[in-house]
Amino acid sequence: MAPIAFDAALIGFGNVGRALAGLLLHAGPRVEDAQGVVIRLVLVADRSGVAVDPEGLDLQTLLDVKAKTGGVATYPGGGRLGVDAGTALANLNADLLFEASPTSVQTGEPGLSYIRATLERGMHVVNANKGPLVVAYHDLYALAEQRGVALRNSGTVGAPLPTLDLLRYSLHGAVVESIEAIPNGTTNYILSLMERGRSFEEGLAAAQDAGIAEPDPSLDIDGWDSAAKIMIMASAFMGAHVRLSDVAVEGIGRIGAPEAAQARDAGTVLKLLATARRTPDGVELAVSPTRLDLDHPLARLKDTGMGVVLTTDILGTIVLTVEGDAPLGTAQAMLRDAVNIGRGW
Amino acid sequence: MAPIAFDAALIGFGNVGRALAGLLLHAGPRVEDAQGVVIRLVLVADRSGVAVDPEGLDLQTLLDVKAKTGGVATYPGGGRLGVDAGTALANLNADLLFEASPTSVQTGEPGLSYIRATLERGMHVVNANKGPLVVAYHDLYALAEQRGVALRNSGTVGAPLPTLDLLRYSLHGAVVESIEAIPNGTTNYILSLMERGRSFEEGLAAAQDAGIAEPDPSLDIDGWDSAAKIMIMASAFMGAHVRLSDVAVEGIGRIGAPEAAQARDAGTVLKLLATARRTPDGVELAVSPTRLDLDHPLARLKDTGMGVVLTTDILGTIVLTVEGDAPLGTAQAMLRDAVNIGRGW
Repeated sequence: MAPIAFDAALIGFGNVGRALAGLLLHAGPRVEDAQGVVIRLVLVADRSGVAVDPEGLDLQTLLDVKAKTGGVATYPGGGRLGVDAGTALANLNADLLFEASPTSVQTGEPGLSYIRATLERGMHVVNANKGPLVVAYHDLYALAEQRGVALRNSGTVGAPLPTLDLLRYSLHGAVVESIEAIPNGTTNYILSLMERGRSFEEGLAAAQDAGIAEPDPSLDIDGWDSAAKIMIMASAFMGAHVRLSDVAVEGIGRIGAPEAAQARDAGTVLKLLATARRTPDGVELAVSPTRLDLDHPLARLKDTGMGVVLTTDILGTIVLTVEGDAPLGTAQAMLRDAVNIGRGW
Repeated sequence: MAPIAFDAALIGFGNVGRALAGLLLHAGPRVEDAQGVVIRLVLVADRSGVAVDPEGLDLQTLLDVKAKTGGVATYPGGGRLGVDAGTALANLNADLLFEASPTSVQTGEPGLSYIRATLERGMHVVNANKGPLVVAYHDLYALAEQRGVALRNSGTVGAPLPTLDLLRYSLHGAVVESIEAIPNGTTNYILSLMERGRSFEEGLAAAQDAGIAEPDPSLDIDGWDSAAKIMIMASAFMGAHVRLSDVAVEGIGRIGAPEAAQARDAGTVLKLLATARRTPDGVELAVSPTRLDLDHPLARLKDTGMGVVLTTDILGTIVLTVEGDAPLGTAQAMLRDAVNIGRGW
């Protein structure tokens, strides 16, 4: 059987974009064998400009150039310094956009405009950027449906887990009544250290040293990353129509060593829990440091572990967790979305 | 968008078959709305004979007739007393077979013959029967591929969970290194009671009273149900080629109250664990009562809970668990397989 070939553009060449290129390079042959889909990057854009090759960029060269010069625009032959991603996209002939540009949960930009323009043109979108979904989840899905193309977002929520795949492929006929999640590994890592007696500041510094927390960690620490993720899950699983300002958000910055010790002494663990519950008025979302009993399904999640609990009507309580090293989680989620689109799945 | 219509036959009208009919009856409209697929049962077979209606059987009537007379052959109009399922199938014009006949892990029959004949004819198969897969997993998949039809088995393993869905839709590019599972709710229920101080006999009796254990519970108790399930998972996730006689199987029948108490006193829990590990010679499978440390991902699974741990190369350790009431789990797994086939997913 001849493999299905898919040409893709990638916007954003930070950690996630580079991991995707590396994964395509190394796992591409395996995916071609097993799933029968070949994905070729024909355009990559970052702040420096773009790299283009309609025959497919050489991924090793692309990664080398980025490491050496800090940008893709110096890609030999196909590099274009200062060319805007939107302009390059508008002139591109490809099947699919991988969107991995920097996230803004306030405006969704610049990803939101890229995604809209791409869907409008009748191209599929595989998105790893929470911002556009926080701002316009249902609008973007309506647009994709209207244009008859796919919009997939596995990389935005609990990426190594089949979180959003569950909805598409596995929950048919079931209703999700509520969601509880620990969707942010950085805060869970810091809280794990605090549980062992470290202060918040020590925990944060350790997370930054380990490359787990960003230099500006406020999006994680203050709970907004978790809020964005529970919004996306509630929109997907529960049909919620909510704005970010509707989410009651409390981060972990104000937790002192005494609170962590008290939680431990009470036989509980302190976790940054994100929740979505149905109410008579719709769906209520919250993110807050929460004491979990030790037999709670997410209580034992240590370090950068992440997890989701879905309470359903006919399938019991389904729990998905991931632990251990999964630095390629988001990249793999993008790869699998693209492969599934390629297969028509 | 007009829904995709799928005509299906169902062999076996025991607990699983009846639950599927009930689910189609009650969740059918929801699935038509959300997934755009309508599944119509045109043939149902049990020991009494068959019920046939090319326009679709009335599911409520079918369930009523079964409850009243013990068989489907008395279905008004379309009932055929003593007609053999295989003969009825051979003359049927339908898209798909739901296979839910009684399981034999030794011979795979009668399901194995039904599945083979159906695939040969170019019809899809949605199978909830472990036996045929234990006997002929790779042969059946090869046959399905050769005929260009789908064979799906979500109902055979950890049904309420997206266990086999993971493989098809979510793990692209990743390698499963090992599997640990608690795939049998009945033995977990009994062990949970023993953990609380009951004897094996008391636990078994309670499980039978609650309708959780079969009148003849040996398949569960002696570990063969778990062995069949770890075989199916190892075949699917790890490409293992094994026979049931290759699995080292020990059940829970010889566990006494002292062992359960010792496990508890040592700060562990005793679980019937099924494992698959790669060795230089292939994949090694075992089922045995195992003490788990309390921080093991499956240690907290109580009562009829089930769970699977997949250790992967690039996605960390993925854990799926289900707890609470999911009596429709297997039926929903069959429904979702059929819907996904209907959609071409």
